[in-house]
Amino acid sequence: MSIIKNTCTPATLFSGERFSVTYRLFGSETEARAKAEDICIEQTVEFPAEEVPEGIIRDHVFGRIEQFGTGGGDGFEAIISYANEIVAGELTQFMNVVFGNSSIKPGIRVEHLDLPASLLRVFKGPRFGRDGLRALLKVPKRPLLSTALKPMGLSSQELADLAYQFVLGGMDIIKDDHGLSDQSCSPFEERVRLCSAAVQKGSRETGQPCLYIPNITAPHSEVMKRARFAKEAGAGGMMVAPGLIGFDLMRELADDDSLALPILTHPALQGSFVTSRNGISHGVLFGQLARLAGADATIFPNFGGRFSFSREECKEIVTATAERMGELKPIFPAPGGGMSLDKVPDMLETYGQDLIFLIGGGLFRHGPDLVQNCRHFRKMVEAME
Amino acid sequence: MSIIKNTCTPATLFSGERFSVTYRLFGSETEARAKAEDICIEQTVEFPAEEVPEGIIRDHVFGRIEQFGTGGGDGFEAIISYANEIVAGELTQFMNVVFGNSSIKPGIRVEHLDLPASLLRVFKGPRFGRDGLRALLKVPKRPLLSTALKPMGLSSQELADLAYQFVLGGMDIIKDDHGLSDQSCSPFEERVRLCSAAVQKGSRETGQPCLYIPNITAPHSEVMKRARFAKEAGAGGMMVAPGLIGFDLMRELADDDSLALPILTHPALQGSFVTSRNGISHGVLFGQLARLAGADATIFPNFGGRFSFSREECKEIVTATAERMGELKPIFPAPGGGMSLDKVPDMLETYGQDLIFLIGGGLFRHGPDLVQNCRHFRKMVEAME
Repeated sequence: MSIIKNTCTPATLFSGERFSVTYRLFGSETEARAKAEDICIEQTVEFPAEEVPEGIIRDHVFGRIEQFGTGGGDGFEAIISYANEIVAGELTQFMNVVFGNSSIKPGIRVEHLDLPASLLRVFKGPRFGRDGLRALLKVPKRPLLSTALKPMGLSSQELADLAYQFVLGGMDIIKDDHGLSDQSCSPFEERVRLCSAAVQKGSRETGQPCLYIPNITAPHSEVMKRARFAKEAGAGGMMVAPGLIGFDLMRELADDDSLALPILTHPALQGSFVTSRNGISHGVLFGQLARLAGADATIFPNFGGRFSFSREECKEIVTATAERMGELKPIFPAPGGGMSLDKVPDMLETYGQDLIFLIGGGLFRHGPDLVQNCRHFRKMVEAME
Repeated sequence: MSIIKNTCTPATLFSGERFSVTYRLFGSETEARAKAEDICIEQTVEFPAEEVPEGIIRDHVFGRIEQFGTGGGDGFEAIISYANEIVAGELTQFMNVVFGNSSIKPGIRVEHLDLPASLLRVFKGPRFGRDGLRALLKVPKRPLLSTALKPMGLSSQELADLAYQFVLGGMDIIKDDHGLSDQSCSPFEERVRLCSAAVQKGSRETGQPCLYIPNITAPHSEVMKRARFAKEAGAGGMMVAPGLIGFDLMRELADDDSLALPILTHPALQGSFVTSRNGISHGVLFGQLARLAGADATIFPNFGGRFSFSREECKEIVTATAERMGELKPIFPAPGGGMSLDKVPDMLETYGQDLIFLIGGGLFRHGPDLVQNCRHFRKMVEAME
């Protein structure tokens, strides 16, 4: 007989609506099935199932295996559903239910999230998305062009001078390198003031909109302050690394009506989720979760660069940026990392037109004039429309 | 000739003080050495090295290989140093420099952190640590005994009733299960009020201090509110999962003098860092980073339970909870997860007396009376002192 009694929880607390997570489980079929059963308990009650009395907890709180099979590919696939109510409307608890403790067990990968409309309504998602960002930039069709201010160690004025040249060269988005925070070489406020001004000046001269997007990844209590400073200084967006500040703080930035700025999400410190078969799939991490947490564009390493993502993994991200998730807007994939100009044709063929080209060091290698290098890049992209 | 000019950054911005990260690099020696060289660039300037002019950036901002060798074990070991100044006094940027982009590259693991006193002074670390927690509980020597309130789905009153029995049974610390957030079965404020009161009542009866530690992992803007509510309701500590809210928010909770409560850190969603050879070592993640970010005790899966940590990995965590890190206090290892009473002797032999036993479901299996089961557990531990 169980010590646990549960007589006080009314069944009416549970709507019956559930969300589902697809897990890939490695090992033999017996092992995989045992893992699926374990997940139902581990991600919810974390308690010996046999000690839980009949009733509400078993009927609603336990995870439920909805489907189990090979699903095509290595290992086995289990679709497990959870009651909406156990996430309490919180993105943090949602992520905890999806993969909190199971992240510590080997041979489990989160492959897909399926949220019913009733749960998707809790998350506002991207404020701008693909269409909103295109409208801001007045670029209805072609891929967007983006670059990063770096290297760390330049002064704020030197970074602003680079930013100005990037605008003249026709870049649409100029972001801080994600390593720029508040170093004394280029303190945050000075850098954001000078770079915002330089980009606005350049943009007036070209007659083309251009967004300067500073990195506001920072200590917890600084993030919102830096966001507000950036807004007032005339920045055109915010970049954050949820691996450093948490997905939910990105969500809060996205939801803040007084900011109302586009958000770029950066993958720093998220790599361990995707560099082995344990973890979270590329599509869920850089696509679905990024959207749930309000990013308008998701930065990830392009295939064939100095990182290790395959073309298939990048395509999986692209799919997840636009697949149907209730009313959540599709967002831009922003592949980058060791990109060079000669990769542009192959990328256009792989990704199509709805992407942000993110090219950094490569723009410095083509010739001695940065503005000309940027124009060359832009012409290449325009020519392939 | 490089497009980049850097004439405005004064050398005086750099003190010459550097911190070091030990990386384990997999592959052949040539590959490992190339990885080490790549890390020096990737984690700092993220820019083609040959395009960076001579001077400050090369001399100070680049990472520097201080040592390269086999280091005993698989693969190769590189110790790479970075200028203190590039982390700008920020825990978020420190973590970014340690492993931000390199987390996305396979075959790299962070094995150890070495911070000079000049950088350690930036982080206050644990407020209580081992000695502080022992003083609060008036338990000078024996291992501390801890359990979790669960399963999710019980009402707040049912959880409080369990808490009361746990106190009577002689538990030192009673924490929320990490899946309890603000579900309607047991809303945060109601639960914390009832459980704090139940633990205080029980503690008056036994004459022994006992800490109730609610889970305050929550959406970003709720965390501090829940911490303050918990403090006012008489809770004895705070549990957070930095994998869900970010390490820096835990640091802020630890540093807040108006809270001044012990912190338990929970490993939810951190598993992917340690479940493959890419990532972060057990000691760094659950020991060194937990201390830098102010945890007083670090929860991790015990060896031999339903998780996959080996005895060696657990010992590595224990070492990291107490190794010399400037003035940062040693903290408690709190192994748990699928523990049962029969594991107590082996654990005492492995961990020694400075640990928190975290036992959950196991307490419900020994016999039909929860208070008696707890007492049995406590007697076993006391008998082995």
